[in-house]
Amino acid sequence: MTARRNTRLEDIAELAGVSISTASRALNDSPAVNDRTKQLIWKLAREHDYPFRRHMPAGPIGATGTIALVVPRPQAREVQLDDPFTLELFAGAADAARERGCDLVVSHFAPTSYDDLLAAMTTSRADGVIFLGQSGLHPAFNRLSETEGRFAVWGAQLPDQTYCSIGSDNLLGGRRATLHLARLGRKRIVYLGDTEAPEVKQRLRGYFEALEQSGLDPDPNLLVSAHFTVESGEAAMDAIIARGVDVDGVVAASDLIALGAIRSLLHHGLRVPEDVSVVGYDDVPFARYSRPALTTIMQDTARAGRLLVSKLLDTGGSGDMRSERMPTDLIVRESCGG
Amino acid sequence: MTARRNTRLEDIAELAGVSISTASRALNDSPAVNDRTKQLIWKLAREHDYPFRRHMPAGPIGATGTIALVVPRPQAREVQLDDPFTLELFAGAADAARERGCDLVVSHFAPTSYDDLLAAMTTSRADGVIFLGQSGLHPAFNRLSETEGRFAVWGAQLPDQTYCSIGSDNLLGGRRATLHLARLGRKRIVYLGDTEAPEVKQRLRGYFEALEQSGLDPDPNLLVSAHFTVESGEAAMDAIIARGVDVDGVVAASDLIALGAIRSLLHHGLRVPEDVSVVGYDDVPFARYSRPALTTIMQDTARAGRLLVSKLLDTGGSGDMRSERMPTDLIVRESCGG
Repeated sequence: MTARRNTRLEDIAELAGVSISTASRALNDSPAVNDRTKQLIWKLAREHDYPFRRHMPAGPIGATGTIALVVPRPQAREVQLDDPFTLELFAGAADAARERGCDLVVSHFAPTSYDDLLAAMTTSRADGVIFLGQSGLHPAFNRLSETEGRFAVWGAQLPDQTYCSIGSDNLLGGRRATLHLARLGRKRIVYLGDTEAPEVKQRLRGYFEALEQSGLDPDPNLLVSAHFTVESGEAAMDAIIARGVDVDGVVAASDLIALGAIRSLLHHGLRVPEDVSVVGYDDVPFARYSRPALTTIMQDTARAGRLLVSKLLDTGGSGDMRSERMPTDLIVRESCGG
Repeated sequence: MTARRNTRLEDIAELAGVSISTASRALNDSPAVNDRTKQLIWKLAREHDYPFRRHMPAGPIGATGTIALVVPRPQAREVQLDDPFTLELFAGAADAARERGCDLVVSHFAPTSYDDLLAAMTTSRADGVIFLGQSGLHPAFNRLSETEGRFAVWGAQLPDQTYCSIGSDNLLGGRRATLHLARLGRKRIVYLGDTEAPEVKQRLRGYFEALEQSGLDPDPNLLVSAHFTVESGEAAMDAIIARGVDVDGVVAASDLIALGAIRSLLHHGLRVPEDVSVVGYDDVPFARYSRPALTTIMQDTARAGRLLVSKLLDTGGSGDMRSERMPTDLIVRESCGG
């Protein structure tokens, strides 16, 4: 039996009447080759058993592009996609990518350093990269922007920032939430949040500005650290109550923290909103179904997704990629009263 | 000035001392080429300005594989990733893919027919495809499995099924939820769900089996259609109450429907659980924070993600890809009483 010679790339090129480079690029769906030529070459490759399954092009339903989504890893914690707001951002980005005919690649990689960020960028096949969260990497993102253009970060806009970030106006949001309580006559207003996170720092500044604007003195006893979980919010509120501190309002850095604070208050026999007004942040889907329904600061995650995707697809290079602070809305429901 | 000739693929191959086919495959990160050769060729390509940005390999942090995630589109509705359970599944799949070093590509494409499914499969560059939901495409998936092996569907296991599905044991889940209410002494038990969905049909069958087992007669007045939203659950419960039907228990096809039913009952001055026991399905993260906290049937989405990913990565072909029904747990909280 005669050994059957395997088809080589040169054979395909010859059959198609194109150069070898062109044949190679066609098999990899390079935009440098026109569709008609690509279709011909794919057909020939299939007919002649030239193996290229991994390199099959997108075809008639082909994505117009690809966006990579990378979630940086804070400190030593594993990245789990279990925070409802992060999931909402995800969904916003995926929906926005879909509107533009793009696939969204959720990377397996969770960077923790500049080197990781650079590796993520230089090895990505995507048209652009969305980093969901700054996670202490602000200086690293600044450095990254010296050589890399096609990325955008969901997070706070910070001083001396050279990269593109999309985030809500945290200062204004924190101020608006606090002013709402002050206008309802609240005077002993607690702030619950993780003051290491850049966004929370900005919301806290807004809280301080609102207190000053309302003639209220800031009180360190009214500031308690809480991570972005219900449990942490509950524990933080428990701690304040245990100290015997008098409280009539709570500004929480997120809806989950607010829910935790409410659980604590109810457990201690306090009524929400009658005794203590509580305002959250995010407007996660459950905020409207909690009892009492949560008054909160809305972050428009659908819009955030569209902005992030647009920065990557519609701008010509990092020079055009200005950061944006999205406006926020105070959504008044039941947890504040008044 | 002499025109500088562009580097051709043949030049790279010659410099590297490999065949043209090998050079082409190396530039496209084919598993058929070893890492040392690939690194050499990438280096040469960069040094000689051979354009291959779109084809840059994953590099040192390279994904070991890629899983595509496709959400079929039911009827005429647009796919939005705003259902909390779907988002949980999404997160479960992304986390599982990450554990295996794989990227998860959320496709821009939402198939509605067999042709769409086939297109999604044959044009995917992924190692396998997860379809999140059956969406009326059961016959189409059966047909797809005749020629395509590397896909798995989150959904119900149905008669004459030839493809691989992963889902929870819906029959058992529906039965367990209903038995729980019957054992608490409830006798007028409503079922709220969308009976077109395969999973709901199975849960409903479990409800009927439990009624029979408990000596209760099924009553068509106690069956109301509801879509997987809080609003729909609330409207369905409103309708039952408006009819003047006597009810003391509610089995809901999902936690959101249960939340809607609870809102309706409370609005009508009925107490949950004292007057009416309510049980949901899914155990979405919010279930434990609702008031009353929701008794529900848990679907382990982290486990579902790992199973789906494992079916695609660890099996040798469609012959090994047996469907699996995951066990469910009844999570007893506050909404049923007893």
